[in-house]
Amino acid sequence: MKLTIERSALLKSLAHVQSVVERRNTIPILSNVLMEAKDGKLSLTATDMDLTIVDQVEATIVDAGVTTAPAHTFYDIVRKLPDGSEVELTANAETAQMTLKAGRSTFTLQTLPREDFPAAGVADLPQVFGIQAGELKNLIDRTRFAISTEETRYYLNGIYVHATEAEGIPVLRAVATDGHRLARFEMPLPQGAENLPGVIVPRKTVNELRKLIDETNDPIEVSLSETKIMFRFDSTVLSSKLIDGTFPDYQRVIPSGNDKSLVLDCKTFSAAVDRVSTISTEKSRAVKITLDGSSLTLSATSAENGSAVEVLEVNYEGTSLDIGFNSRYLLDIAQQIEGDSAEFLMADAASPTIVRDSADTSALYVLMPMRV
Amino acid sequence: MKLTIERSALLKSLAHVQSVVERRNTIPILSNVLMEAKDGKLSLTATDMDLTIVDQVEATIVDAGVTTAPAHTFYDIVRKLPDGSEVELTANAETAQMTLKAGRSTFTLQTLPREDFPAAGVADLPQVFGIQAGELKNLIDRTRFAISTEETRYYLNGIYVHATEAEGIPVLRAVATDGHRLARFEMPLPQGAENLPGVIVPRKTVNELRKLIDETNDPIEVSLSETKIMFRFDSTVLSSKLIDGTFPDYQRVIPSGNDKSLVLDCKTFSAAVDRVSTISTEKSRAVKITLDGSSLTLSATSAENGSAVEVLEVNYEGTSLDIGFNSRYLLDIAQQIEGDSAEFLMADAASPTIVRDSADTSALYVLMPMRV
Repeated sequence: MKLTIERSALLKSLAHVQSVVERRNTIPILSNVLMEAKDGKLSLTATDMDLTIVDQVEATIVDAGVTTAPAHTFYDIVRKLPDGSEVELTANAETAQMTLKAGRSTFTLQTLPREDFPAAGVADLPQVFGIQAGELKNLIDRTRFAISTEETRYYLNGIYVHATEAEGIPVLRAVATDGHRLARFEMPLPQGAENLPGVIVPRKTVNELRKLIDETNDPIEVSLSETKIMFRFDSTVLSSKLIDGTFPDYQRVIPSGNDKSLVLDCKTFSAAVDRVSTISTEKSRAVKITLDGSSLTLSATSAENGSAVEVLEVNYEGTSLDIGFNSRYLLDIAQQIEGDSAEFLMADAASPTIVRDSADTSALYVLMPMRV
Repeated sequence: MKLTIERSALLKSLAHVQSVVERRNTIPILSNVLMEAKDGKLSLTATDMDLTIVDQVEATIVDAGVTTAPAHTFYDIVRKLPDGSEVELTANAETAQMTLKAGRSTFTLQTLPREDFPAAGVADLPQVFGIQAGELKNLIDRTRFAISTEETRYYLNGIYVHATEAEGIPVLRAVATDGHRLARFEMPLPQGAENLPGVIVPRKTVNELRKLIDETNDPIEVSLSETKIMFRFDSTVLSSKLIDGTFPDYQRVIPSGNDKSLVLDCKTFSAAVDRVSTISTEKSRAVKITLDGSSLTLSATSAENGSAVEVLEVNYEGTSLDIGFNSRYLLDIAQQIEGDSAEFLMADAASPTIVRDSADTSALYVLMPMRV
């Protein structure tokens, strides 16, 4: 393999794939990026066995060929090369080395044979549909904060996506929950997604995908089966295993009879929660909300730190109520609300509360109260 | 104690003192900031027993008084208050509480009696001189990176400052070393510093001092004895114990007969060292410099990562030489060189090398080579 390529193009491409590679690998080949040069293109592939990203970039191919080199070291070198450099890559299978030349620098990296690299299983993924970059971005942002990090509840370690109906209209719905809070996002069902099975997309895949979306405005092609999902961008393809588990029946958690409606200014409320929670203990993060007429009192006490009280004017229809929440969860949800005002629908101090953006019904949040 | 104060003024003052307070304290009072309100001023004091910062800020004093409250919690609350708030502080000695009111927020913090707070020993410091903020900033920046972090060599855990003569001219000299590299900075001796004893200023004091300098352009009054040092800013006073130890005879480490002179472009050299060191092992960080005529070859090899070579055009007067350095130490020094070019004075591959800014003789660096 021998080729030349512009440094910034190579850097961008390497940046897309290298973050898939784990820092510590017991299997040496998984530290490497696979490079395939042919037909005026360099194709870069990185995988952790579950998640694979392939990126293609234009290059001047002198000799077509294939090799694999350590992803992080390769990326660090290219990152440190001066902007505007022309990079020459030469792989020699006999010496098992790849040479990188740029300006007056020469680097030699150890390579591993292409045969060691796990074959990217090009499965036949029956479901194919397109989604706008902005929609996929919203789908992720509105839900991923609620993904569980408890490894034992592996079926909660991702976003559950499925096709369903909401008020008679077909929708694509995404749900994440960690048992303490739940986030649900829905959007009109894209054409081609009618028979979508319910799938759980793992957290790492969600995070890598989210980074790639930031660089595009084009529609993204999604294809999937019951075990695999693939996202196709202009020059990048991300494919991933799905979580093999059953997502709980989340609809049972979303209350329908909550009749105590609270409408408040989201920014003012967030700032107050943040201030008052300074007093909460690091462990519980609890803040108490006391509702009485149009006055909302936020409070926190801790034996160690003292106490805090803040009063807000709100729009509340309901009888007096004391209810406690984890301040961090309140702030996570408030951060996702882009409109000025948020609506809380409550039943009582022990039952789940619904939170929505008053101006945007695509997302719905459920929050379990805390005893305070 | 009862007073009102503008939030931004209180925040600035608290920011000055709170970073002295350690996150974990076995002695509760050391987590607190001492507040004394009288004569239109609020005075804030924080200490870790070795280092004390006192800051004064104008306030509207309703009732003069004294109290102490948890520094970090107090600072976090004030930080989170909206800009432009008016803050009311009321301390009640009987309930051992301080109440903070701002807008519609009320916070109550536990206080500890003033008597528990360590008395700031107002020692009589005989040596007094003035120093420009910019000079003190340079003195710190050019030397502090070389301060040792080995706790057992406590006498190297600071910057050694003393009055001496350089080529017959009285100078104030600062030196720091960790045994692998040494940094020396000198400036014309300020008036009043003629009889300065040699003192070692601890790292934490240096770091806190450096932060305060960033906010001032005024001359700073320095006063000291053999055991204490004090820096007086406009409204802030930092006082600190000095390290009770003997700084080694650093002059013996600075070679005088190094005759191999190398002049190079500092930015080009740093970038090349940074690139080549990508290959060095995380542990040694070694890079090798090979000098031959006007060509400097930087190289690194590691069994794990491969190899790197980069060639630079330099100005070198001397016989061929191979010499190795810790790349991180080279980069630390290069970062302190503000001029375009740096000069290396070398003897051989086993002897200390001198590095200077070609355009600025105030600083001198000594670097021990590594076997490569």
